[in-house]
Amino acid sequence: MSVTLSATLAANEDIERRRRAGERVLHLAFGEAGLPVHPALRDKLAAASERNGYGPVAGVPGLRAAAAGYWERRGLATDPELVVCGPGSKSLLYGLLLAIGGDIVLPTPSWVSYAAQADLVGSRPILVPAPPGEGGVPDPDLVAAEVHLARAQGRTVKSVLVTLPDNPTGRLATPESIRRLVEVARELDLMIISDEIYRDLMHDPALPYTSPAELAPERTIITTGLSKSLALGGWRIGVARLPAGAPTLRRQLLAVASEIWSAPAAPVQEAAAYAFSEPMELTARIALSRRLHGTMARAVYERFAEIEARTPVPQGGFYLYPDLSHLRLGGSAEITKILLEEHGIGVLPGHAFGDDPAAARMRVAVSLLYGETTEQRMVALTSHDPLQLPWIADSLDHLSTGLKELALVRH
Amino acid sequence: MSVTLSATLAANEDIERRRRAGERVLHLAFGEAGLPVHPALRDKLAAASERNGYGPVAGVPGLRAAAAGYWERRGLATDPELVVCGPGSKSLLYGLLLAIGGDIVLPTPSWVSYAAQADLVGSRPILVPAPPGEGGVPDPDLVAAEVHLARAQGRTVKSVLVTLPDNPTGRLATPESIRRLVEVARELDLMIISDEIYRDLMHDPALPYTSPAELAPERTIITTGLSKSLALGGWRIGVARLPAGAPTLRRQLLAVASEIWSAPAAPVQEAAAYAFSEPMELTARIALSRRLHGTMARAVYERFAEIEARTPVPQGGFYLYPDLSHLRLGGSAEITKILLEEHGIGVLPGHAFGDDPAAARMRVAVSLLYGETTEQRMVALTSHDPLQLPWIADSLDHLSTGLKELALVRH
Repeated sequence: MSVTLSATLAANEDIERRRRAGERVLHLAFGEAGLPVHPALRDKLAAASERNGYGPVAGVPGLRAAAAGYWERRGLATDPELVVCGPGSKSLLYGLLLAIGGDIVLPTPSWVSYAAQADLVGSRPILVPAPPGEGGVPDPDLVAAEVHLARAQGRTVKSVLVTLPDNPTGRLATPESIRRLVEVARELDLMIISDEIYRDLMHDPALPYTSPAELAPERTIITTGLSKSLALGGWRIGVARLPAGAPTLRRQLLAVASEIWSAPAAPVQEAAAYAFSEPMELTARIALSRRLHGTMARAVYERFAEIEARTPVPQGGFYLYPDLSHLRLGGSAEITKILLEEHGIGVLPGHAFGDDPAAARMRVAVSLLYGETTEQRMVALTSHDPLQLPWIADSLDHLSTGLKELALVRH
Repeated sequence: MSVTLSATLAANEDIERRRRAGERVLHLAFGEAGLPVHPALRDKLAAASERNGYGPVAGVPGLRAAAAGYWERRGLATDPELVVCGPGSKSLLYGLLLAIGGDIVLPTPSWVSYAAQADLVGSRPILVPAPPGEGGVPDPDLVAAEVHLARAQGRTVKSVLVTLPDNPTGRLATPESIRRLVEVARELDLMIISDEIYRDLMHDPALPYTSPAELAPERTIITTGLSKSLALGGWRIGVARLPAGAPTLRRQLLAVASEIWSAPAAPVQEAAAYAFSEPMELTARIALSRRLHGTMARAVYERFAEIEARTPVPQGGFYLYPDLSHLRLGGSAEITKILLEEHGIGVLPGHAFGDDPAAARMRVAVSLLYGETTEQRMVALTSHDPLQLPWIADSLDHLSTGLKELALVRH
């Protein structure tokens, strides 16, 4: 087995070591939502604490029905029998890779774990850049050529993955790119895995959102979870929506799930059932989260713009993907190291996301800037002007100063 | 991927379908502890419901320290840095198979998931029967020959597994067998995975218990969890104790964990930290559980003895492994089918555990007989004579009648 500790973990350990040693380091390297649990979810967890049986591998009926309702409200009629729960959408993505088999087409840049998981199951990812200006979708024009080439070499290619909206770029693939990708997937007979975990965190909820499941319901699997929208990363809960008419896929996913993780923690499943039913108190919480993530992403975008970084305008989630190649300070490893060691700014290098190591691109997560305590985070969440809160203003100043010093080095 | 839904799941689905259809079926096919959560653990879970961050992949420091203390109290000095938590010991076993690599030696019969997991990671298990009268340990005299043979054929064999006490036989390997297995493992340079999830459910706690970690600390990994001793199967929490001096193994296990499940649910980790600290209220609960499992296992043993089944006397956990070959009604598939369809007795066939399909052996789990409601189960748990409780006496009568009818068929 060739997998080693992921770049994310290694970078985060380094940042935390420096912080413990007393260094001032801005933590922009971790994809945690940075917000407290809603009290209603805490109550549901406590109320379900008597649930200790193993329960169905696919998840309890109430959770599957709630998740089906969640998708129905987004225009996707869903049979609860086609919903499978897991301890995080990450585990479901791993299970799907094993269950589908073969090689997978991934966009670049893309979330670090897709390629790492493929490596674990012995699948070789085919990396295809996103169309210019987009993120989270492999360029449909290039996918067909790459898949034909791989198949001509005897490889078995069975799936393609999209992230809507994207981690690391914060961009949402256009409906046109999704439409074209779906056509290509159909021609090539590829399953489409659509990771939609940031869907409810589109900064502008009015922006048209196209899931491939609308266009190719027969071949699309959606995964999502509550780690991002409701900040429940540590609770480990995700759900997958499988296509109808693919009983073998479901059976194999359940076989994998049953041999590796059994099911998500039973009390967490009960709380998640409530969350996916989308009561007003939770949709209001998600709306506040969305607003805060968007405000902070734009503020950080502007700090990078001050030093003429080229950054795709973030549209969803809590990430940005700036390019500092114009400073000519090296590739993504070098720029990330300089930012951390000389300016106390911790980010993840673009090469960890499968990007060209020669480009000085990096992923910046804004969500750990909201506060050090639950109280600070709640204030930030409900504030009409979070940028003026002293702890946030201070972090943004630190960022601004660090970036300006970095840009000066060049001159 | 060749894995299909496990025999356990398929059998359980069949039993539950029959029950829904109104059939009277005694559910002796599922390895759930069948007891309620202790209220102190419910309180700890509720109190930790604000924990929503991802946290360390190895588990929170408090849980690792508590697990280390648990092992220290059993004579095994443990560095908390060598403890890795997972969502169930099952997930840790899977991660260990991936991290260690190569083929694994398994005892037969043995828990269904070991071989299924090996299949998932592309490892070919080498099945070695337990020494006569024992369970959970491959006969050390046969292990060396089998491993030499496999290696001569070019296979890479890296580990051997023991289950102490055993599922499915309910037997504890003798200290002598463990000592001999450890010698063989050392000669062959095999890692030893010791699944000790039923350790605290030895019916007679005074029986000498030898973990291979005492004899070969340099090569033994122990896994355990709270699913059996504290009936927390649905909460998904397990811990592994890695050997000192194996930093690569730890790194690779964490890499696997981080890409598949991240960590157990954070609130569950906090409750588990309390459980592994072994406060009196929980050790008292485990003592009651142990007593009930032992009483019931002996009662069921006697019912099988009435029809002259050969059954190893159960020593730990809540399983028995009777052999009805003397009835000459077929192998394990046939006898299991007859028991279910003609006598309303649901058990798992021995062949699902890697045993010879021609032998009419089966695994009988007694833990779903304790009651249908939390109230009934609490009464059973605290009763000095649970066999006289009407719902338990009724189930035992149903079993006794069914077995006697089965035996009559032969005559």
